[in-house]
Amino acid sequence: MKRNIYIENMPLEKAQTLFDQRLQEENCYRIQTEEIETTDSLNRITAAAVLARRSSPHYISSAMDGIAVKAAITAGATEVSPLNLSRESYLEVDTGDYIPLEYDAVIMIEEVNFINGMAQIIKAAVPWQHIRSVGEDIVTYDMLFPAFTRIGPYEAAALLTAGVRSLEAVKKPIVGIIPTGTELVAQGSDEMPPGQIVESNSHMLKALCEEWGAIVKKQAIVIDDKEQIRQAIQETISQCDIIVVCSGSSAGREDHTAALLEEMGEVILHGLAVRPGKPAILGLIGQKPFIGVPGYPVSADLIFHLFARPLIYQLQGIAPPLIPELECRTARKMPSPMGVDDFNHVNIVKIAGNHLCFPLAKGAGITTSLVKSDGILCIQRGSEGLQAGDNCIVSLRRPLNIIDNSIITIGSHDLSIDILTDILQKRYGLRLISANVGSMGGIFSLRRKETHFAGLHLLDYETGGYNISYVQKYLAGQPWMLVNLVKREQGLIIPKNNPGGITSLKDLLLPQIRYINRQNGSGTRILLDYLLEKENIPPEKINGYNREEYTHLAVAASIKNNASDTGLGIYASARALDLDFIPITQEQYDICILPQLFTAANLERLQTAIASDEFKERIMAIGGYDLELSGQIIMANNI
Amino acid sequence: MKRNIYIENMPLEKAQTLFDQRLQEENCYRIQTEEIETTDSLNRITAAAVLARRSSPHYISSAMDGIAVKAAITAGATEVSPLNLSRESYLEVDTGDYIPLEYDAVIMIEEVNFINGMAQIIKAAVPWQHIRSVGEDIVTYDMLFPAFTRIGPYEAAALLTAGVRSLEAVKKPIVGIIPTGTELVAQGSDEMPPGQIVESNSHMLKALCEEWGAIVKKQAIVIDDKEQIRQAIQETISQCDIIVVCSGSSAGREDHTAALLEEMGEVILHGLAVRPGKPAILGLIGQKPFIGVPGYPVSADLIFHLFARPLIYQLQGIAPPLIPELECRTARKMPSPMGVDDFNHVNIVKIAGNHLCFPLAKGAGITTSLVKSDGILCIQRGSEGLQAGDNCIVSLRRPLNIIDNSIITIGSHDLSIDILTDILQKRYGLRLISANVGSMGGIFSLRRKETHFAGLHLLDYETGGYNISYVQKYLAGQPWMLVNLVKREQGLIIPKNNPGGITSLKDLLLPQIRYINRQNGSGTRILLDYLLEKENIPPEKINGYNREEYTHLAVAASIKNNASDTGLGIYASARALDLDFIPITQEQYDICILPQLFTAANLERLQTAIASDEFKERIMAIGGYDLELSGQIIMANNI
Repeated sequence: MKRNIYIENMPLEKAQTLFDQRLQEENCYRIQTEEIETTDSLNRITAAAVLARRSSPHYISSAMDGIAVKAAITAGATEVSPLNLSRESYLEVDTGDYIPLEYDAVIMIEEVNFINGMAQIIKAAVPWQHIRSVGEDIVTYDMLFPAFTRIGPYEAAALLTAGVRSLEAVKKPIVGIIPTGTELVAQGSDEMPPGQIVESNSHMLKALCEEWGAIVKKQAIVIDDKEQIRQAIQETISQCDIIVVCSGSSAGREDHTAALLEEMGEVILHGLAVRPGKPAILGLIGQKPFIGVPGYPVSADLIFHLFARPLIYQLQGIAPPLIPELECRTARKMPSPMGVDDFNHVNIVKIAGNHLCFPLAKGAGITTSLVKSDGILCIQRGSEGLQAGDNCIVSLRRPLNIIDNSIITIGSHDLSIDILTDILQKRYGLRLISANVGSMGGIFSLRRKETHFAGLHLLDYETGGYNISYVQKYLAGQPWMLVNLVKREQGLIIPKNNPGGITSLKDLLLPQIRYINRQNGSGTRILLDYLLEKENIPPEKINGYNREEYTHLAVAASIKNNASDTGLGIYASARALDLDFIPITQEQYDICILPQLFTAANLERLQTAIASDEFKERIMAIGGYDLELSGQIIMANNI
Repeated sequence: MKRNIYIENMPLEKAQTLFDQRLQEENCYRIQTEEIETTDSLNRITAAAVLARRSSPHYISSAMDGIAVKAAITAGATEVSPLNLSRESYLEVDTGDYIPLEYDAVIMIEEVNFINGMAQIIKAAVPWQHIRSVGEDIVTYDMLFPAFTRIGPYEAAALLTAGVRSLEAVKKPIVGIIPTGTELVAQGSDEMPPGQIVESNSHMLKALCEEWGAIVKKQAIVIDDKEQIRQAIQETISQCDIIVVCSGSSAGREDHTAALLEEMGEVILHGLAVRPGKPAILGLIGQKPFIGVPGYPVSADLIFHLFARPLIYQLQGIAPPLIPELECRTARKMPSPMGVDDFNHVNIVKIAGNHLCFPLAKGAGITTSLVKSDGILCIQRGSEGLQAGDNCIVSLRRPLNIIDNSIITIGSHDLSIDILTDILQKRYGLRLISANVGSMGGIFSLRRKETHFAGLHLLDYETGGYNISYVQKYLAGQPWMLVNLVKREQGLIIPKNNPGGITSLKDLLLPQIRYINRQNGSGTRILLDYLLEKENIPPEKINGYNREEYTHLAVAASIKNNASDTGLGIYASARALDLDFIPITQEQYDICILPQLFTAANLERLQTAIASDEFKERIMAIGGYDLELSGQIIMANNI
């Protein structure tokens, strides 16, 4: 099959201008309207000014509980000469009651003394006191609100009060979404053969469209067959205002979208100078805007925000909500290619008064980056990137108060960190962000005071002890506190029933055994290197010594899915994925806390969570853990 | 019937603490959970940490379009000595394709030159390059997110990718809302007899509950009969988690709520030291929190925000979204009673770099204040209020970017202002706030530079001309521009077929004729006083000379609803409400613009809107207007 590898590299602003211009030329922005019932109008947008159909109140009414009187007859009443009104000369009224024509004032109930049916008053009434006039709230023909007003709770109440039964509203734009790809399946399962991918993008894009006020017609998955995709587009286009084709936008052998669009309408552009999202396609079929969205979820989300969001709002006559921005400092060096606008998802945490931002995993295929992201840092075209510590502007994807109510842990990962995350969120609404960079990465983050705490399991080759010597060496001169979380079993994770017949570390030298390693600087890597040295096993002879994963679970998953045959890791990971395990040693997993970076309340929350029964019970339920030292302060440096 | 006028006056914080404490004691905050399908999980909140059920990708896959090779065979390939790979030694792959076990690297398609079925490469491959490892995105047993996470578009995609079919979610709290009141009707119409009120509060509260994440069971209106209300409560309470009774919370003769709650459960408090909202009731029936909401909509909204909102969020395990605050300057003196926390709805506009806030009409019955409100300014207990120009903190009810994209007009009202409002919103998304304070009020706002422009129709007794002499006198020394909007007919608005037999101003002296006047400082009042003086009619002899309304439409509505017999006003108002009209004079309605307060873009927008055909056509469709001078600059002072 033909490959079409020559796609453009158009700068973002040029693409936005070009797309906008063509849509204007083809009159694609015209706003469609429809008459709707007021009872169905919540969250809809008015298409024209709405005028009141009645006045409210429509009658003179009492503004108080009290008595209605003719003010003239109350003249002369004072505290020293009270006036007694006979039952015929007043009317008892509650707030909102109609005031008949013969009365022109209301006296508050608190100022009336009822004696034998007479109403005694001690003050003359002023004409029209405590009387609500007709139309005090709404007058017939008042403009309740102009065009392009969203009907919220108050607008809905005003419409009812003003007797408006129906109104002209903006028709919600309809977005047709067609997921394409022979490799796609609608639902994930344990039994998926290699090569299949769960189709989640169309669900994500649908939810985004709905947030932005559109209705979505989502089609079933279409395989990579040009004619079938053509047919799906033809069927969808008559029912929608915007058409979105998911994936197939790149230059792979099965990417038909651009060619089809060329045949069915007009390709406005194919290929953007942005990262991720380069292979995006923008076009028109008749008067219907067309967006070809790349297959990777992070790319799809970006392209959708850049092009679908403004379009969907424009078709509703309203401006998109402003995306708040925040000035941050980068915690890491962030190199960036000169030629593209480079959009980086980041986590943000406030440490010592500064908002620090940490880039999330860069891969466009990482759905979880979208879940974790607190914001997007765009490194503009023409920049080679940012140095650690540079100031930058982040477009927020999460409310600032949630971001500011977060702590971060950067270091080695253990399942106990996840359990702490859950407990802190549940009990205190405190968000714990974690980044898995291994124990040495944790040490360096502590040293730079960029993390509230770090998980460590660093073996001291000389003493055989854990963590203390590292912390003392690297954190000299700053306060810290080393607290044990768990002790845990390290060993070789192997497939069920040990098909490779592995019995000890020596077997890693067998050429058919594909090892999967942990990254440099991780506690497990340090442990492995120590063990290999002790047993005189040359690392370069191990098949896969250079293949690296960043967590225990990732190692286990690689073995589980036959991508490798064994790796050093913790028992809990083996058990989680129902794998076998050859125990090698027990190690100590501590967290090193920097108390000065915490508020007193958050430090207490962390400690309470670690000491809780729930934490202990959930750890023990996993297996492979020993809580003998858990929660104990191993050592502290209180400067 | 018995009146129960003694309600408490409890300070707000005390009430909040007391309510919270009793709910805690009765274990009302326990969070209910339910298992839901992932496909129904959008916008739901997790009740427990969600773990991945599968890894993604679950196979080793290509990260690029290209060819899969065994890295070892590529050794030695360089630009000067390219290597040709036979068709048996490589596999063509697209992004995401499975990499069979015999390969361990991918070479990008851009770096491959296909020649006669051979793949020529010019660089050796490094093992595992461009290969996505198993679980690069998600690993089985990874914690996808902790408890109390809202499932948004990205969480939904991650759940699908991670093979999670169902999850434990927080059950949405159910709020039972019972509207009570014999005077209430479900729908407004022109034929409502005096005393009837449209029931809109329950709709407003329902929409608020839904915004806050709850489900609402809204009952039909119940009349003010204690037993019928008791029955409605009994029927509702078993189906809901929170019970809300609308109105009947005060001390009128038909207010049964507190007494009923006393019998059925527990009154925690009745009566709050807040304005508005004093007669609120808080209590418990069994373990179900009970909120008795006052009948006035502004009170109902406030009490609901103070007590229902935190409760509904608490029952979902999440914190309510932060309400942003803004520092403003008060444009008006705002006196406030010492004994209450006084909540004032305000409009906010940015003028000369300052956010100025303008209090909206104070009545608790004014639904339109809720629609217009940009925020709430709370004047705390113990303060006698604010002086004009004081700094204050406003809790925003509208996004700041919308507030900041507003201009304001304070002065005399004319229907043409509404039409401008609509056109500016529709064409430019520019919000025009208007406050009707009459022409002299407009002059003073201009003088204080607190309004972008003002509508004026001020007759000069000496010259018979309009506006110029006033503007010259009061705005001496500052730049201004006087632009005509319309000329319009002023006259006596009278009921259809003139039942009072009014023929001229002299008839206002008839004792049976109830006049409805405009407020002091309004152009119409000045005109009236001029006309009365000219005809030697003593104002104090006119029945109703002291009854004041703030707009022409309000005068017309009063006459339409037989609350008065005549008033001076514009033809357009008489016609809008299908009333008769006795013409008296034609007057000139100009706007005085302060150009220095505008951005260049907004000034041009205003001028373009006034010059537009749409503006002229809509004005002429109303009738009683003359556009001879419309859009002309009458005079300008360009300092």
